[in-house]
Amino acid sequence: MKIYTRTGDKGKTRIIGNDVLYKSAQRIESYGTIDELNSLVGVVIANLSEKNLVLKDELQEIQQLLFDCGTDLAISATDKKHEFIFTEDNKAVDWLEKKIDDYSAKVPAIQKFILPGGSKTASNLHLSRTVTRRAEREIVALMQEEPINDYVLKFVNRLSDYFFAAARYSNVLDGVDDIQYRNSKPVFR
Amino acid sequence: MKIYTRTGDKGKTRIIGNDVLYKSAQRIESYGTIDELNSLVGVVIANLSEKNLVLKDELQEIQQLLFDCGTDLAISATDKKHEFIFTEDNKAVDWLEKKIDDYSAKVPAIQKFILPGGSKTASNLHLSRTVTRRAEREIVALMQEEPINDYVLKFVNRLSDYFFAAARYSNVLDGVDDIQYRNSKPVFR
Amino acid sequence: MKIYTRTGDKGKTRIIGNDVLYKSAQRIESYGTIDELNSLVGVVIANLSEKNLVLKDELQEIQQLLFDCGTDLAISATDKKHEFIFTEDNKAVDWLEKKIDDYSAKVPAIQKFILPGGSKTASNLHLSRTVTRRAEREIVALMQEEPINDYVLKFVNRLSDYFFAAARYSNVLDGVDDIQYRNSKPVFR
Ligand code: B12
Ligand code: B12
Ligand code: B12
Ligand SMILES: C[C@H]1O[C@@H](n2cnc3c(N)ncnc32)[C@H](O)[C@@H]1O
Ligand SMILES: C[C@H]1O[C@@H](n2cnc3c(N)ncnc32)[C@H](O)[C@@H]1O
Ligand SMILES: C[C@H]1O[C@@H](n2cnc3c(N)ncnc32)[C@H](O)[C@@H]1O
Ligand SMILES: [Mg+2]
Ligand SMILES: [Mg+2]
Ligand SMILES: [Mg+2]
Repeated sequence: MKIYTRTGDKGKTRIIGNDVLYKSAQRIESYGTIDELNSLVGVVIANLSEKNLVLKDELQEIQQLLFDCGTDLAISATDKKHEFIFTEDNKAVDWLEKKIDDYSAKVPAIQKFILPGGSKTASNLHLSRTVTRRAEREIVALMQEEPINDYVLKFVNRLSDYFFAAARYSNVLDGVDDIQYRNSKPVFR
Repeated sequence: MKIYTRTGDKGKTRIIGNDVLYKSAQRIESYGTIDELNSLVGVVIANLSEKNLVLKDELQEIQQLLFDCGTDLAISATDKKHEFIFTEDNKAVDWLEKKIDDYSAKVPAIQKFILPGGSKTASNLHLSRTVTRRAEREIVALMQEEPINDYVLKFVNRLSDYFFAAARYSNVLDGVDDIQYRNSKPVFR
Repeated sequence: MKIYTRTGDKGKTRIIGNDVLYKSAQRIESYGTIDELNSLVGVVIANLSEKNLVLKDELQEIQQLLFDCGTDLAISATDKKHEFIFTEDNKAVDWLEKKIDDYSAKVPAIQKFILPGGSKTASNLHLSRTVTRRAEREIVALMQEEPINDYVLKFVNRLSDYFFAAARYSNVLDGVDDIQYRNSKPVFR
């Protein structure tokens, strides 16, 4: 098997449903950024500290779910043959919300913004949080051009909150205190 | 406290001053990228080598200042209630320039471009340099749409030069030589 | 030597050939992203595991070649004084293809997508793969505005396939199995 086909050397490529688009098309920005996020989650997993290994399975599950997001985003808006993976009764958002509630109960309450950092794992999770939000911005730009699967957007919105909660939980596991942003108003209620 | 409010599930969100924007708005791209950079600085700090721990306090100060940038960028151009944090007599740019002068005096003079890399800390600082420049590009795009706080742009411009100087200094601390770009003209004067 | 010139404090900058552009211009997005990728390759090298040190020289060669890409992308489309570095008989693409063929022969055949991750080095290489693709998207956007050097685009297209092959090879070197995307169709043929 040759993975390089040379067909993309002039800047165009295929999506699911076989439309041919410029690689700079907003749809490709969207799932390309999901792929970047997925790879970053791979980096987070590969660098989990001993005490953070409890997060390994759920992070791998998130990688699987990000691939599902990518598939749904790669389907042409005019394609009738392929069906979305994320559906109304998708359990992925509920699953994330439960994790967020769980971790939020295990970390010190805050009113002010905190510096994104702390232990190695926590800082990697904060970085994932912000790349998730970059992916979300790309998807929101796409949805202004063409219809998308709304459940993907919902999942990605919740995912950045998951990464925030997980980062804070991870600092607790590693015994590191979050540092407050000194000029923060009391923003969390 | 629930950090997820579900209000952003349809792609819109609030800024300071309470305007509601699409998450893909250029203003949100700008402070979202500052948040990504801030998180990357968190990663740099969490991975500082023993010999580079001297950089810890100033990197944390940079995280605080990046939050100030984010606040100023999040204020609606039409809002009259909130004031910018960065002002004309802001000391942050002078502070960066002093650090740059200091580190530049401690590293071997160069005429040619160098490969961005070296020790773990140095390569992380180079990556921060380039993400700072990505944030700068987003802010410059914003400023073509709406007025911004110019002192933020000045700070971010100087910050990428700080990261260049700090990366080189960090390689000196770790005893690693910079490698030249082989096809470089003598670009530094 | 002072690296900060303050000339860019208002959002404009120079390219090769001396045109002055906004920093948000697509040309600057393109080589700025190549610079970010180059720095990420620096991070990959600085964090190579013992067993992956065999990759060091070629990754450094890739850094040199990325600088060549940056130079070609920084040349104004109207400039007549400066010549492109990448030419028709450029050997860089052949060199990458040989590496891809070589590594593809050393890894287990797959039909399904794999999760981007595994060992530390492999996950860093996957992240590089996706940042390469982000750079490619920026170059494709540029080429819709102005003529570019097509050999740069070809190189960057092949480079992401190189990173995929190298990531898989790296997992073999580290004795880590790739995990399949559970909902994948048989996509590789
Ligand atoms: C979307 C996509 C991606 C997305 C995945 C999205 C997601 N889920 O998150 C992203 C961006 C991540 C991606 C990445 C990559 N991709 Co991709 N991707 C695609 C794309 C467009 C669709 C894949 C898909 O889901 N197809 C599945 C179904 C929905 O499509 P389908 O056409 O209905 O498929 C059915 C039929 O084709 C049928 N079928 C028809 N003929 C045959 C023959 C046989 C023998 C069999 C068994 C079945 C079969 O089988 C399918 C099942 O019903 C394809 C191109 C294409 N248009 O198919 C490339 C493609 C699969 N990707 C390719 C490559 C090379 C890659 C990368 C290595 C690129 C890189 N350097 O990063 C990576 C690998 C990522 C990884 N981790 O493994 C190549 C594979 C080349 C090859 N040797 O086969 C393809 C074919 C594109 C191309 N022409 O270059 N990709
Ligand atoms: C800008 C912003 C950001 C920026 C910060 C920018 C920067 N400085 O760099 C960024 C992008 C980094 C960010 C990130 C996050 N944010 Co934010 N952010 C905001 C935003 C828009 C403004 C915050 C701010 O500075 N407000 C301060 C002042 C300037 O605004 P103000 O309205 O005048 O506030 C005064 C009054 O409101 C008064 N007040 C009014 N009622 C009450 C009630 C009480 C009890 C008190 C004490 C005070 C009070 O108190 C303030 C002080 O004068 C708010 C939404 C909003 N419009 O307020 C969300 C908001 C604070 N963020 C929120 C969240 C969830 C997050 C993230 C967790 C998201 C994520 N998953 O990444 C992260 C956390 C980051 C961190 N490290 O801690 C939520 C918090 C939800 C909650 N439970 O309260 C908010 C409310 C948005 C929302 N509705 O979802 N954010
Ligand atoms: C493109 C570019 C980049 C690209 C490199 C692209 C690539 N190859 O991938 C990127 C984005 C990576 C980059 C990064 C940086 N850059 Co730069 N870059 C430039 C730029 C626009 C062109 C450089 C180039 O290739 N010139 C070479 C040839 C092609 O141009 P030329 O004009 O024909 O040059 C000839 C003549 O000028 C002649 N010459 C004329 N007068 C003199 C005098 C003397 C004494 C000599 C010896 C020769 C000479 O010498 C040249 C050889 O023939 C210059 C600005 C400019 N327009 O020159 C800045 C410039 C070199 N960069 C600069 C800086 C500060 C940086 C960064 C530190 C910024 C940062 N904070 O990240 C980094 C350093 C990166 C590194 N790893 O070393 C500054 C250097 C300031 C200084 N003190 O000299 C410059 C001058 C821009 C500026 N005014 O601020 N850069
Ligand atoms: C917490 C704050 O972050 C901003 N916000 C919401 N979604 C995103 C995103 N995808 N990227 C960047 N910023 C975002 C909004 O201003 C919100 O109020
Ligand atoms: C050193 C060179 O880098 C380019 N340059 C200046 N600012 C940025 C930025 N934010 N992003 C990418 N490239 C930039 C200009 O071409 C400058 O001359
Ligand atoms: C493997 C699949 O990845 C997509 N593809 C091709 N090039 C890029 C890029 N630069 N960025 C993101 N996605 C890309 C196409 O849909 C291709 O078929
Ligand atoms: Mg949100
Ligand atoms: Mg500058
Ligand atoms: Mg390709």
